[in-house]
Amino acid sequence: MQIGVIGLGRMGGNIVRRLMRDGHKTVVYDRAADVVSKLSDEGATGASSLSDLVSKLDTPRTVWVMLPAGEITEATITELSSLLSSDDVIIDGGNTFYKDDIRRAKSLREKGIHYVDVGTSGGVWGLERGYCMMIGGDKPVVERIDSVLKTLAPGIGTIERTPHREGFDARAEEGYLHCGPAGAGHFVKMVHNGIEYGIMQAYAEGFDILHNKNSPELPEDERFELNTTDIAEVWRRGSVISSWLLDLTAMSLAQHPTLDNFSGSVSDSGEGRWTINAAIEEAVPAPVLSAALYTRFRSREEHSFAEKMLSAMRFGFGGHVEQKG
Amino acid sequence: MQIGVIGLGRMGGNIVRRLMRDGHKTVVYDRAADVVSKLSDEGATGASSLSDLVSKLDTPRTVWVMLPAGEITEATITELSSLLSSDDVIIDGGNTFYKDDIRRAKSLREKGIHYVDVGTSGGVWGLERGYCMMIGGDKPVVERIDSVLKTLAPGIGTIERTPHREGFDARAEEGYLHCGPAGAGHFVKMVHNGIEYGIMQAYAEGFDILHNKNSPELPEDERFELNTTDIAEVWRRGSVISSWLLDLTAMSLAQHPTLDNFSGSVSDSGEGRWTINAAIEEAVPAPVLSAALYTRFRSREEHSFAEKMLSAMRFGFGGHVEQKG
Amino acid sequence: MQIGVIGLGRMGGNIVRRLMRDGHKTVVYDRAADVVSKLSDEGATGASSLSDLVSKLDTPRTVWVMLPAGEITEATITELSSLLSSDDVIIDGGNTFYKDDIRRAKSLREKGIHYVDVGTSGGVWGLERGYCMMIGGDKPVVERIDSVLKTLAPGIGTIERTPHREGFDARAEEGYLHCGPAGAGHFVKMVHNGIEYGIMQAYAEGFDILHNKNSPELPEDERFELNTTDIAEVWRRGSVISSWLLDLTAMSLAQHPTLDNFSGSVSDSGEGRWTINAAIEEAVPAPVLSAALYTRFRSREEHSFAEKMLSAMRFGFGGHVEQKG
Amino acid sequence: MQIGVIGLGRMGGNIVRRLMRDGHKTVVYDRAADVVSKLSDEGATGASSLSDLVSKLDTPRTVWVMLPAGEITEATITELSSLLSSDDVIIDGGNTFYKDDIRRAKSLREKGIHYVDVGTSGGVWGLERGYCMMIGGDKPVVERIDSVLKTLAPGIGTIERTPHREGFDARAEEGYLHCGPAGAGHFVKMVHNGIEYGIMQAYAEGFDILHNKNSPELPEDERFELNTTDIAEVWRRGSVISSWLLDLTAMSLAQHPTLDNFSGSVSDSGEGRWTINAAIEEAVPAPVLSAALYTRFRSREEHSFAEKMLSAMRFGFGGHVEQKG
Repeated sequence: MQIGVIGLGRMGGNIVRRLMRDGHKTVVYDRAADVVSKLSDEGATGASSLSDLVSKLDTPRTVWVMLPAGEITEATITELSSLLSSDDVIIDGGNTFYKDDIRRAKSLREKGIHYVDVGTSGGVWGLERGYCMMIGGDKPVVERIDSVLKTLAPGIGTIERTPHREGFDARAEEGYLHCGPAGAGHFVKMVHNGIEYGIMQAYAEGFDILHNKNSPELPEDERFELNTTDIAEVWRRGSVISSWLLDLTAMSLAQHPTLDNFSGSVSDSGEGRWTINAAIEEAVPAPVLSAALYTRFRSREEHSFAEKMLSAMRFGFGGHVEQKG
Repeated sequence: MQIGVIGLGRMGGNIVRRLMRDGHKTVVYDRAADVVSKLSDEGATGASSLSDLVSKLDTPRTVWVMLPAGEITEATITELSSLLSSDDVIIDGGNTFYKDDIRRAKSLREKGIHYVDVGTSGGVWGLERGYCMMIGGDKPVVERIDSVLKTLAPGIGTIERTPHREGFDARAEEGYLHCGPAGAGHFVKMVHNGIEYGIMQAYAEGFDILHNKNSPELPEDERFELNTTDIAEVWRRGSVISSWLLDLTAMSLAQHPTLDNFSGSVSDSGEGRWTINAAIEEAVPAPVLSAALYTRFRSREEHSFAEKMLSAMRFGFGGHVEQKG
Repeated sequence: MQIGVIGLGRMGGNIVRRLMRDGHKTVVYDRAADVVSKLSDEGATGASSLSDLVSKLDTPRTVWVMLPAGEITEATITELSSLLSSDDVIIDGGNTFYKDDIRRAKSLREKGIHYVDVGTSGGVWGLERGYCMMIGGDKPVVERIDSVLKTLAPGIGTIERTPHREGFDARAEEGYLHCGPAGAGHFVKMVHNGIEYGIMQAYAEGFDILHNKNSPELPEDERFELNTTDIAEVWRRGSVISSWLLDLTAMSLAQHPTLDNFSGSVSDSGEGRWTINAAIEEAVPAPVLSAALYTRFRSREEHSFAEKMLSAMRFGFGGHVEQKG
Repeated sequence: MQIGVIGLGRMGGNIVRRLMRDGHKTVVYDRAADVVSKLSDEGATGASSLSDLVSKLDTPRTVWVMLPAGEITEATITELSSLLSSDDVIIDGGNTFYKDDIRRAKSLREKGIHYVDVGTSGGVWGLERGYCMMIGGDKPVVERIDSVLKTLAPGIGTIERTPHREGFDARAEEGYLHCGPAGAGHFVKMVHNGIEYGIMQAYAEGFDILHNKNSPELPEDERFELNTTDIAEVWRRGSVISSWLLDLTAMSLAQHPTLDNFSGSVSDSGEGRWTINAAIEEAVPAPVLSAALYTRFRSREEHSFAEKMLSAMRFGFGGHVEQKG
């Protein structure tokens, strides 16, 4: 089918490529003219503005917005909504907060415009492996764009099938899922990222314990010099904790066994934070997901006011001097 | 090669089978005579006692002890050590605390007996998939038993290879690794299990947040009825958090979408606890691994004294009544 | 001075009493006529409606709203704002979310009405001990109502003075503080409650460890039967962890050493949740405050979906049966 | 009564002084001859060696060992036990691990020597305020030394009494408590310190949230410049979270509002770690006490291997560059 794509960064560009490879027609726009012309060379129809893009699409139109979340997505969708017509579809494939999806879908519905939110996972590997997609929106609209979703998804591939799935949604096995009404896609993707933080932190703590097993704090006959590179590799093979994140870890360690190429200052994106907020709204305990987030916060600080307060109290009651030299 | 195996439960029995399939000769013993005779029928040489087993092995002997950790393993190895000769090898394939390995190896060394600890992961799937093994012991001894380890390990199989592994231990890619001196194998296995708890808890929290997204505590237009069975499945396909534990989760949910066949009371084994102790000894922060353990503790309680204390304080300062009806 | 008070529950009623004792004139209103007449008997001027209350106050008026946070406070302030005149003052003494204060102050400012938010701590003990108050609002307005605040505050009393406070706000020693513009009072009170949760949980965990020191899981010669009632008492006397919350704990334990009068199901109010949200917004790690909140969430559940998922995974890889009987 | 005191550091010296003030006779020894002669000048009988100290005490002797925990305490008690006679009493007033107390008491009992463990809280303030003491040992022995304990304890003082304490141990109100057999004193003291860590961390996190409320990450109209010095002070006055640790915090902040005199690198002692180990042995969830300990661990590191692993994974799946410049 024909689809417009706005935002041709690493994610958006590869989405266009994966769509074209499978025979879809794309009309593409980005504020950076050079990426537009590059994709035009690869077979896309370039557009010079949002209105140009809209004018080049047959009705009812489908437009995939693939921009960094936040203000620019909001502004683009607002402008788009004034250019589109009733029964057109806007797909937000970015990392939008799901409550914004709910609000937008409601407001666009008044104009007859459909809104679909797609959370995608797969990162820089998506062009090759396909994108795992979690989708929110009205059923008939999600079905209307099914061929696009099917193309972008990984497909069944060689991954072993789960028994007893008769009666469940077959699309899940293809790597895409209609999760519920507008917002549900980004909500599920948000939780996915929350889990991702937790899993990453579980590995990180475990490897830290391995790494420090030669610590001089330990009795000499209880120290080991462990090769974390080989351990990551062996765990990929038949262990309970094999995973794609472990595969990536094994790759990193094989190249940089000490990881000294990394500073240790770790960013976090909105999804990890929103997941905790969601847990709190639902009164669901989420100690692991929270701890994972807090580790990232702490990793970006020198010393916190909190830590200085601890020293201040220790000095207060015990005369323990942890003052600056 | 020829090897004695003591303990023919689910793990031990399948180890014998996997060894025999690959041409190794096994002499087997278990306190339960029926499992001995069953494996004899399958080709093993049965033994009626530890001394019978020892007498049926050529020197230098190799004996794999595969018993539930703790007192019975300790008692068996003590008895074995009085029956074996210098240069024989005892392999402890159970879930022994690594400091016990260090102690035992030292004490057996005085008798000239070699000690090898093997942590195995793979659970009930090991017969078919092979066992991921983490090994501690002296280099020449570990090399002497290499053919046995190679047979038990999963082998390279179809799992994609990690680039840049030139110069690293090739056995890791086969699914087994000599981690260091006695104790190192069980130490690495222990941390593996610690990580396992953390990863499981990360998924569990995330799915709990999905599951409760229809909570009446939430504003009505922010509730979703999410299908966690389908979500587990879609995440297996190209998402960042795909893993073997997720595969298992998807299987469980396909059979029992509500999981109401489980009580929710979750056990923990020594490894999870020892991992936290190890972290503390090394002064390594392990908030996620700890939180995962504590969740299991709490899952087995009705209401804790701690929670009643909270109510008591709330009543004290605020007159909040959380007393029994 | 003269002041209107709306909401005569446990907190509001005692505030009126403490004000009258110190010579202030109060005009009081509550939806429940009987509490109005009760306070009238004690010397207050009763009002039969919001407009009646407004009409009985001299201009510029001061009205203290002391209602449970949320919709009713919002509705009352909205109605009040239509009855009051420019230069009147609305004080919200409840547990309002500070962002609502910021919004309200802005909207009331357009009508010339001043808004002051007062977070109060001290619970049911306030009538006797005075209320610790954290105040947000414009400086001249907070100064205008100073005599009321001074009356409600505990005063210096017999609490030892902190050295080196020359140059700091003297009101802090009286037990009330102008923290900043509108919202700052409730923000500081919110964090106060977050800390309260953390401290309570620290005691609760410690006492739980004492309480379970006779657990049959422990080696027999390492078990103690500890008297937690006496331990709470001795810690009140010269220990580093003496506190008012410990005083309350000692009182509870003296009456009910087993605390079996409490169910163990513990509520949480908005402040604990908002504190975590605030920490996340600021990227401040708050593991203790979060853990305290999550314990309360968990205390109100039977078994969580999360726990069942753990069992499902354990069954998946290890055949561990934690299924219902 | 007469008592020997070994170890005349800050704690031991002040204990001797508090004992002498109340009329007890002390025989004192320290490896540093100058502190012995200083206390001799103040009225103590100096000893030049352990055996000299033993020879100067009337039988049955009572010796208080007040040394930093660990090897030196162990060595001193071992030497003492060869010098003392049946029915003598050794008191360990240091921070000994309670399992060492259990072991020692058992071994000394074979020689007829009594062993009492005393955990003390109160830090550098003890000379003036008295020491809160938690005591383990046999009942008749603890009673034999009661006059010494009573002297060292704070006494009832001006602290309000807890109602309903009829029938409980009256000594608790004096600030000392016989908790149980040998080891019970140090066990209770250990948990006290675990709680102390948790409470300190609760305050630290809360103040950190206050401190960062002017963070540029926040929307401009939601930022406050909060005066944490004044907030600490106001909370001392009638708030639910008033405590001695808060008093100390208020003192520190009054002198150094930014706390920039502290590095933020925070030590931990054995008790915090042992408390977590005890919780794990008992299967008691202790998320807050653990989090408090981990914060201290992290405060002493630059960047952890764990954090670099997070960056490595993020780079692996998302191309996020957190590498060194």
